[in-house]
Amino acid sequence: MSAPDVSDASLEADVFARNCGSRDVLQNLTGRWGLLALLALSEGDYRFNALRRRVDGVSERMLSQTLQTLERDGFVTRTVLQSIPPRVEYSLTDLGRAVSVSVRSLVEQVEGAVPQVMAARDRYDTDPDR
Amino acid sequence: MSAPDVSDASLEADVFARNCGSRDVLQNLTGRWGLLALLALSEGDYRFNALRRRVDGVSERMLSQTLQTLERDGFVTRTVLQSIPPRVEYSLTDLGRAVSVSVRSLVEQVEGAVPQVMAARDRYDTDPDR
Repeated sequence: MSAPDVSDASLEADVFARNCGSRDVLQNLTGRWGLLALLALSEGDYRFNALRRRVDGVSERMLSQTLQTLERDGFVTRTVLQSIPPRVEYSLTDLGRAVSVSVRSLVEQVEGAVPQVMAARDRYDTDPDR
Repeated sequence: MSAPDVSDASLEADVFARNCGSRDVLQNLTGRWGLLALLALSEGDYRFNALRRRVDGVSERMLSQTLQTLERDGFVTRTVLQSIPPRVEYSLTDLGRAVSVSVRSLVEQVEGAVPQVMAARDRYDTDPDR
């Protein structure tokens, strides 16, 4: 018998089930910084500081945590290059690359919808019946 | 001249820019409850309590906030049906439906990847070099 708050990867994943592990994985991917890091790395490999410049607004600490989470989940690889000083590069795994395609199409759709969303907000905020 | 922390919908949206409005819109859509509410509504219209049962684990307060945000952003419509007692139904707008297709394909991909992610976590957590 498993504890009720433990996710069971042997069952088929169902994001609607409150204990399903897919919820956490999704949140790691679609959280503010996870999503941007994944997108940036889908453009090419990055060293830490270059990635931090690309993901505008992220703190060193948050980017470091985000990359660790994505590495642990198997979406990102961290490679230490033997140079002086040693360099660390981040890149997507095959799984990360596959997922980044879906993330990118969602992001592009949302970027394209921003004017519509802003117009909807204006209507909502000025609705006299509200 | 616009204040630096105000998003400008007249510029092309770029999720990498820290003040771009697309970041907020994305977070409303891909946050834990926004994503699940959007997915559930892509199955069909829901009344509040039925939606709350579908989005397993959400509190009344969080679901209510989530739906308000999605309504304000133009992804969800709230319809009051003239019945006794009055009934309120939630459904996707055309924009919500379009975005839900991308969200669903991402979610299905991630659900399918859960066994791989769990295996990656095991490897990461037992790596003696870490």
